[in-house]
Amino acid sequence: MTNKTFVFGHKNPDTDSIVSSIAFSYLRNKLGDTTEACRLGNTNKETDYALKTFNFDAPTLITSVNEGDNVILVDHNEATQSVDNIEKAHVRMVVDHHTMNFKCPETLYYHAEPLGCTATILYKLYKQNDVEVEPNMAGLLLSAIISDTLLFKSPTCTEEDRTIAQKLAEIANVDINTYGLNLLKAGTDLSDYTPEQVINIDSKLFEQNGKKFKIAQVNTADVNDIFKNQAYFEAAIDKEIKNDNLDLYVFAATDILNANSKIITMGTKSNVVEKAFGVSLDHNTATLENVVSRKKQILPNILNNLD
Amino acid sequence: MTNKTFVFGHKNPDTDSIVSSIAFSYLRNKLGDTTEACRLGNTNKETDYALKTFNFDAPTLITSVNEGDNVILVDHNEATQSVDNIEKAHVRMVVDHHTMNFKCPETLYYHAEPLGCTATILYKLYKQNDVEVEPNMAGLLLSAIISDTLLFKSPTCTEEDRTIAQKLAEIANVDINTYGLNLLKAGTDLSDYTPEQVINIDSKLFEQNGKKFKIAQVNTADVNDIFKNQAYFEAAIDKEIKNDNLDLYVFAATDILNANSKIITMGTKSNVVEKAFGVSLDHNTATLENVVSRKKQILPNILNNLD
Repeated sequence: MTNKTFVFGHKNPDTDSIVSSIAFSYLRNKLGDTTEACRLGNTNKETDYALKTFNFDAPTLITSVNEGDNVILVDHNEATQSVDNIEKAHVRMVVDHHTMNFKCPETLYYHAEPLGCTATILYKLYKQNDVEVEPNMAGLLLSAIISDTLLFKSPTCTEEDRTIAQKLAEIANVDINTYGLNLLKAGTDLSDYTPEQVINIDSKLFEQNGKKFKIAQVNTADVNDIFKNQAYFEAAIDKEIKNDNLDLYVFAATDILNANSKIITMGTKSNVVEKAFGVSLDHNTATLENVVSRKKQILPNILNNLD
Repeated sequence: MTNKTFVFGHKNPDTDSIVSSIAFSYLRNKLGDTTEACRLGNTNKETDYALKTFNFDAPTLITSVNEGDNVILVDHNEATQSVDNIEKAHVRMVVDHHTMNFKCPETLYYHAEPLGCTATILYKLYKQNDVEVEPNMAGLLLSAIISDTLLFKSPTCTEEDRTIAQKLAEIANVDINTYGLNLLKAGTDLSDYTPEQVINIDSKLFEQNGKKFKIAQVNTADVNDIFKNQAYFEAAIDKEIKNDNLDLYVFAATDILNANSKIITMGTKSNVVEKAFGVSLDHNTATLENVVSRKKQILPNILNNLD
């Protein structure tokens, strides 16, 4: 029986969740801890591109934890987004950049900052602990910042994200814009995916006052390519709504070149989206101008309008 | 209309709450922020001794905040322990060492560590930001660590609290044991207080599953001196129970020399205390051997046994 601590990001891992598990596990181990980077689901193509470019393996896949397992959460804090059986585990640390919905009967290390990306916080923790950020690790952290901030276009992006991304690009010796567009484009290749798979690439479940909803998001360089299959997406979303008893489902295809999002919205609470963004749904769809961030734009607007 | 941010610790402030509001406000202002150290109640004699020794004024007294006020919480995170109207304020940051019961619709800076004292975390934040800890500030931070750890005797005290206290003592140029005992003894002078006042020197309200309870604690070098007035204390506690609709009240007189606590327990849920500590109450009282910490010993045992 090992005393190893599992470090993981949220379900349906995006690049920041994968990168942060690798980077924080590495830092903890450098400081004398015994941890293993894990992931709660398959990596997406964008993440695969980053891992391949900077020579990292994907973290170990886990789907559940056992009673008393030691865990460290990165890039999330809500139980609904975490590993199965999280309530039985001992949460030792949390490093995150999301809104908090966290209750814990013990005192733990909890570090959250209102930054665009967990990787930005991790860079600061490396500095604070005098642990060197090596070129490949710098490239990995940079990838997470580019991914979470949509190459600095998202309103979640802060000055500190930009400054630290610049430092990381220098250490990794890459051109931010060239590498950044390649990374984002790698993530928009959906040719191998069915609509069921596409909506689950990066989907998060939320709850407020007993109302359950999911917001799924994909990046794309060609919105029309996705919406030509709208009927299939609607069928996939309808199935999710029934299976998970959802009141609302929002699927956002975010245009990385024009910085807006076209959405498909279904569920009994679809009117919440119309109210939240001042739009009228046309065959379940609408275009949200200048909306690229689930965390800072889509989610809070829905929460504020959901009764 | 100023944009100043109010920095404060919990209600019924102890030395750590007062010291942390002063020390974190100073640090934030050094970093270009505009903040003011505040307190939510009167300072106790122990805190007064520390403030006088190291030449600080008590922070500004506030009892409520207005809609949209910017606030920073130190040494607490639960709304029940915070300023009145906290739900209307904008919480920018939290620096704490307690268990978390915090929900916030926005992303904020939240830094908690499982250490004995908020002041220990603050020392690390000064270092991290390259802000010098001057001798008087060092003495103040040291006072908070001595207070919260009962001169390192509490099970909440970690190796890091000890190490940092040592560094602070060197900067402040004081002998830890001599100053520490003087500080703790200053806090045990209850001669000016009525029993009503004594139980409110350091009292915290908790809730679990709709059950409300308070745990009050005072340090003493002479337990018998307190218990000769037991009937008055019981009357004061009874009044609190009725006024606040409490299910349980625990008043702990903690012996700073022998490191144990004699308690008075009242309320319909008094049996929880018997179960929690394996003791039989004798005229509402019991002695809890080796129990000195509300946070690490009294509170979790009650929470675990309260149904």
